[in-house]
Amino acid sequence: MLKDLFSPHAVAIIGASQDPTKIGNAILRNMIDSGYKGNIIPINPSSQEVMGLRFYPSIDKVDDTPELAVIALPASRTIDALKGCVERGVKFVIIIAGGFSELGKEGRDRELQLLDIIKGTDTRIIGPNTLGVYFPHIGVNTALTSPGRMAFLPKGEIAFVSQSGALGLLTMDGVSEYNVGISAFLNLGNRVDLNEVELLDYFAADELTKSIVLYLESVPKGREFFSKVKEITMKKPVVVLKSGRTEESAVAASLHTGAMASDDAVVNGAISQAGAVRAYDETEMMDFGRVLAYSGRISGDRIAIITTAGGVGVITADYISSKVNGIGMRLASLSDETKRRIREVVVPFASVNNPIDLTADGSVDNFDKVIGILEEDDEVDGIIAYPLPQTPKMGVGVVDVINKYKGGRKPIIVGVLGSKIAKELIIEFEKRKIPAYPSVHRTVKALEALRSYSRYVERRRGSR
Amino acid sequence: MLKDLFSPHAVAIIGASQDPTKIGNAILRNMIDSGYKGNIIPINPSSQEVMGLRFYPSIDKVDDTPELAVIALPASRTIDALKGCVERGVKFVIIIAGGFSELGKEGRDRELQLLDIIKGTDTRIIGPNTLGVYFPHIGVNTALTSPGRMAFLPKGEIAFVSQSGALGLLTMDGVSEYNVGISAFLNLGNRVDLNEVELLDYFAADELTKSIVLYLESVPKGREFFSKVKEITMKKPVVVLKSGRTEESAVAASLHTGAMASDDAVVNGAISQAGAVRAYDETEMMDFGRVLAYSGRISGDRIAIITTAGGVGVITADYISSKVNGIGMRLASLSDETKRRIREVVVPFASVNNPIDLTADGSVDNFDKVIGILEEDDEVDGIIAYPLPQTPKMGVGVVDVINKYKGGRKPIIVGVLGSKIAKELIIEFEKRKIPAYPSVHRTVKALEALRSYSRYVERRRGSR
Repeated sequence: MLKDLFSPHAVAIIGASQDPTKIGNAILRNMIDSGYKGNIIPINPSSQEVMGLRFYPSIDKVDDTPELAVIALPASRTIDALKGCVERGVKFVIIIAGGFSELGKEGRDRELQLLDIIKGTDTRIIGPNTLGVYFPHIGVNTALTSPGRMAFLPKGEIAFVSQSGALGLLTMDGVSEYNVGISAFLNLGNRVDLNEVELLDYFAADELTKSIVLYLESVPKGREFFSKVKEITMKKPVVVLKSGRTEESAVAASLHTGAMASDDAVVNGAISQAGAVRAYDETEMMDFGRVLAYSGRISGDRIAIITTAGGVGVITADYISSKVNGIGMRLASLSDETKRRIREVVVPFASVNNPIDLTADGSVDNFDKVIGILEEDDEVDGIIAYPLPQTPKMGVGVVDVINKYKGGRKPIIVGVLGSKIAKELIIEFEKRKIPAYPSVHRTVKALEALRSYSRYVERRRGSR
Repeated sequence: MLKDLFSPHAVAIIGASQDPTKIGNAILRNMIDSGYKGNIIPINPSSQEVMGLRFYPSIDKVDDTPELAVIALPASRTIDALKGCVERGVKFVIIIAGGFSELGKEGRDRELQLLDIIKGTDTRIIGPNTLGVYFPHIGVNTALTSPGRMAFLPKGEIAFVSQSGALGLLTMDGVSEYNVGISAFLNLGNRVDLNEVELLDYFAADELTKSIVLYLESVPKGREFFSKVKEITMKKPVVVLKSGRTEESAVAASLHTGAMASDDAVVNGAISQAGAVRAYDETEMMDFGRVLAYSGRISGDRIAIITTAGGVGVITADYISSKVNGIGMRLASLSDETKRRIREVVVPFASVNNPIDLTADGSVDNFDKVIGILEEDDEVDGIIAYPLPQTPKMGVGVVDVINKYKGGRKPIIVGVLGSKIAKELIIEFEKRKIPAYPSVHRTVKALEALRSYSRYVERRRGSR
């Protein structure tokens, strides 16, 4: 049934406006700019035509019933608009307005009114207090943003569900730098009706989605939620950022989205038992979502590092092998045969011990041959590669080289440090769905997330 | 005496070349491009004139004695070139060539030869196995880089000393994105002569330098080094990234720069007793260097957060108040008077509890007034501010607002999340030397570094 939400043939924007200071204007513009091929239906009693679109005075005057409507009106006028949608048979209604349960008792009563209106009908509510949804694969973009102030993501494999709207949009804006793609974004807001449990169900079956990322400040249906997560994680990885971890910050969370937080030790246990990977901030969320969507599982702890800068290799080795301020995995101990074979293909002053330091003379071809050799060494479970584009023999060709080994027995996670040309290279990796990160720390944390998820799957497999 | 290194009136490049594939060409080009006003003296027996500069066949034919010379020749020809420099009375010689102690016994012998040559003379060696130095304030740039592949930093207040060359250059390239400035960069390489202890002495007295950042893979003169650090840290903050933390990675470090690593628990104790702040990766190094250079000390643990996105406030509150995966500080508990005053100046639906959530309606003026009020609340020791430029009422004016409070009683650390316009805003903060970071994690870690340094200074003051 959620299918209609994700593939509406028509979308109504109630409160669409020609006035650029109105939220209905921003939403309409985002919708038009996103390449949606369906029917965009702007609704506003006082408009005729804007941007070539015919306006309708009200939802009951629309010929074509949209599956999805956005109500971009203040809370006071939202109630009536919702009634109109229900009468017209609109299946999903996004309610942008704030001023509901996040403002206390009076708002909570208004929220109950919304529920009363849809009770016994086929209409579902997303929100209220939401900044909207964005489905790049079909170009539905009802996000409320200031024009030109943030970038949207291309089509991709990560489903992103955020209780908080601003955090969701900021997170997407952040990774837009690397052109990270998503399969869908939904901001749930106050979650008076549609919630994360149903969305998990949908994305579990959704072929576009390879990993599911959730930002939650509270988990009111905890038992149901975590059992749903557990149902999914054997076939699809789930990343959860659950904030409000301490007593102090939980109070802040409850003020923000009006929901009560729970004891973090309990939450932590539930996340890990359900096989989700926990993220702690906006960067980790998408970093983990990418590695889990793009990489096969990693079968052990033994990591080989290939770098063109020795220091980068050493810092990475520290993080990998240290339990204090590190991830407590291991450096693969390369066999003599492997070292001999690597020695044959690299420059004489390269280090063939792990971390393998190709030096600034390391070439694209070196990466190809060395990864090929590591693929055949049974002592290696995974590879971290740093093809640093500041060195003369490194080039964009390294992306195809690493792509060749993608899906092989050993996951490869890439780190590319630096500024402009480093970023360009990460974008190329992203195009091939190879997880690539701009710092040692983020590269290693992605490895930890992958290992954590893989270990969970192994364990559950083993216990069957 | 190191003064001549940092302000030479002439610099010779031995091995300067017209051939773009030669390292002497890259160094010459960087030197020319950096706006050095002194005399650049290219030396190469087979050249006449390149890029408008007169070439000399050898150092003894030069009329004007340079204080600084770079030998951009292979190891085998470096020995003779060094002799020439000593005879000519050159005070500082940068030796680029590798092939010394990092390659074992034979190389170590060659290194001893270098030392023999300068013994009893006024000549000092930087390197060998170094990628050079960069002093933006006078435009000396002897860095060995591939043309166009990395960006150099503007003039600034951070002195950066790196044992590893590539890591040093990559680190600078990384923060070039935010136009972070430095007072000097030196890559020490094998440190056969000039070392970090002497440089600490120089930078401690250097008025351009407000913080000192060191990347070290080994600390051979441990006792001397840490006692020098301790001598300095009461007046100037020092950041140390000491890699090779675990047994496994220490082996890698020793292969990389040919130096033996020491037990990390000992190193850790020494760093903290000396009052340096320890960084664990290339990002933290410069992030910590910036906050320590730009901010006054913070006198306590109680932090107020101002944000225009509630979720960002909650995640920050988590990191601040949590001991597990957090920095174990505290959220300031704002007085009723403070909350009442804030309530008067913000939009009605803003949250005036800490984290203060101005919502997407938060304006530049809100930041001004709220920070002003927080400045007067004795329950607040420091402020984290998130002026997120994706919201309609936020603009570059917020930089001047926060600048107004800089140097006040409470340090302000800024977080700006997102992509393009976020980056532009961070650059504006950087211009005013206000520490600003692109993620929650980096913002909070900078706060932790500042608190750690401030606590050390307090403690030593108290124990006098």
